[in-house]
Amino acid sequence: MKKKYQVVGIGNAMVDILSHAQDDFLAENGITKGVMQLIDTARASELYGKMGPAEEVSGGSAANTIAGIAALGGRTAYVGKVRDDQLGAIFAHDLRAQGADYDTPLAPASAEAETGRCMVLVTPDGERTLNTYLGVSEQLTPADIDPDLMAATEWIYLEGYRFDGPESHEAFAKAIDACKAAGGRVALTLSDPFCVERHRDAFRQMIRDHVDLLFCNVHEMQAMYQADDLETSMRMAAAEVDIVVCTASEKGAYVLNGGGMEHANAIPTDIVDATGAGDLFASGFLYGLTHGYDMLTCARMGCVAAAEVISHIGARPERDLKELFREHGLI
Amino acid sequence: MKKKYQVVGIGNAMVDILSHAQDDFLAENGITKGVMQLIDTARASELYGKMGPAEEVSGGSAANTIAGIAALGGRTAYVGKVRDDQLGAIFAHDLRAQGADYDTPLAPASAEAETGRCMVLVTPDGERTLNTYLGVSEQLTPADIDPDLMAATEWIYLEGYRFDGPESHEAFAKAIDACKAAGGRVALTLSDPFCVERHRDAFRQMIRDHVDLLFCNVHEMQAMYQADDLETSMRMAAAEVDIVVCTASEKGAYVLNGGGMEHANAIPTDIVDATGAGDLFASGFLYGLTHGYDMLTCARMGCVAAAEVISHIGARPERDLKELFREHGLI
Repeated sequence: MKKKYQVVGIGNAMVDILSHAQDDFLAENGITKGVMQLIDTARASELYGKMGPAEEVSGGSAANTIAGIAALGGRTAYVGKVRDDQLGAIFAHDLRAQGADYDTPLAPASAEAETGRCMVLVTPDGERTLNTYLGVSEQLTPADIDPDLMAATEWIYLEGYRFDGPESHEAFAKAIDACKAAGGRVALTLSDPFCVERHRDAFRQMIRDHVDLLFCNVHEMQAMYQADDLETSMRMAAAEVDIVVCTASEKGAYVLNGGGMEHANAIPTDIVDATGAGDLFASGFLYGLTHGYDMLTCARMGCVAAAEVISHIGARPERDLKELFREHGLI
Repeated sequence: MKKKYQVVGIGNAMVDILSHAQDDFLAENGITKGVMQLIDTARASELYGKMGPAEEVSGGSAANTIAGIAALGGRTAYVGKVRDDQLGAIFAHDLRAQGADYDTPLAPASAEAETGRCMVLVTPDGERTLNTYLGVSEQLTPADIDPDLMAATEWIYLEGYRFDGPESHEAFAKAIDACKAAGGRVALTLSDPFCVERHRDAFRQMIRDHVDLLFCNVHEMQAMYQADDLETSMRMAAAEVDIVVCTASEKGAYVLNGGGMEHANAIPTDIVDATGAGDLFASGFLYGLTHGYDMLTCARMGCVAAAEVISHIGARPERDLKELFREHGLI
């Protein structure tokens, strides 16, 4: 039976506030470059006051991935919480306008926390540094997980960042149970090395017990398995999950699925803004996987989608990804 | 005595919602290409529901001009009304972060209308079509005009769009009186040909009685003076105001100030998004004027600033405008 959805993503619903910044600005404000830091309301307000002029674009890691699959014509939906406010309306519009279903109950306008936002500081080298105010996105509870939706998809795609905040494990457990009971499969992205540090045991248990496809980059893989080299880490992961996919920036991506390691080259690109590179890699890979392509082609699709998104400001695709797949002879 | 500000702008405070659209989309939705249409809440909601994924960037015609002057290091302030809501906070942040002062009293969060927004549809040719929900921006009243601020600036810059809505004429009159009484001068931009049609008599009277510098493009000039050719229109305008500046897209800009007509060439650029071209032209021109440059150099500065802003999405400068002026040998 054909399922209604190919991929349903669950994550922290965010609007990105993108601004250019010098390396000095990061240093002066005690911000670690290239990673994601969680910040509270006071710090968010302080930092925003110091930041330069910005632009606002819908973001959220898993939401970017779902938007990318939708842009490719895949059947997708997203679960993540926003408030009934202007940024929440922007987030919902952008996902739906891209063709994804999105019906998570809104936090009421009276909620103290607002729609989550991520202040993205893009340095001249194109690297992005994330300062995340979770807002109501961390209030996603099991009650927000619709078992029928989880049963109606081939894959659920879980965002590691969503491990931060109360009831996140319970919400993921409910989603996994409903998905697996209906014959669906589970993908997880590790999201960020510090996120792995915070939740290593919980990640490890979920990977062993439930995950069929693991996405990560080399830093996250190292944080997770703490082995000396990438291949050892990947083989440790592959002992626990069917498909292990590790991205390696300009070195492309590695896939381990049963036999030998496969490798896809990165697409050479001028990096304008690295925001969303991993997210869009996952879009391309999952699109390929749910359309019957082999692992290497899936990884190549991931690399093409990632290259598109780092060539401009913002973490959602701007060019026609399917056209790019055609140009690269992938479809 | 050196005044605190060189330019204070008054206009409709707006956040732009920018999206790519095909020409078919405009036709199907009864939208006239290349101009500004005023829309109510219901139409705004309908159109937003149909639009593709978007990005949000602070806009507002005069606010863009002020942001451009601030980016150049000019001393500027802005007057325009937003609500105490998320989009209002974004608008205020972006202006202040650029270096402009901005202290117009907020409409309360309880106000029925929200912060104004402009849905900008960018077609593949780079042309922009504006659908404006004025929101609280049209509620700017004489009470919001601080006479001390108007007395503290060399120039006030009035946005033609701000003629739409109640009490706008009274607010402009109060600003003009305070500015002129303190020896300041008045610049006006005609904004849009349909805006000229709506307010021709009021524009004409203000031009005759108060305006020292008139900005417009060829379509607005034609709508205003209804002469057969550009030069006749410009001479009609020049009989009433000291400096007449008319932009002509790829043909550059014309200036009439007493003697003969001067002409600055446009800077050849691939047009990504024409939003803000006229606004940033005014930034460059006013920067030059308030820094003692001759008319032709002012017009060239306008052309360089306009070329920068049409080379990317959004109506605020992204590159260092002063550096561009240097590259073009203007400073």
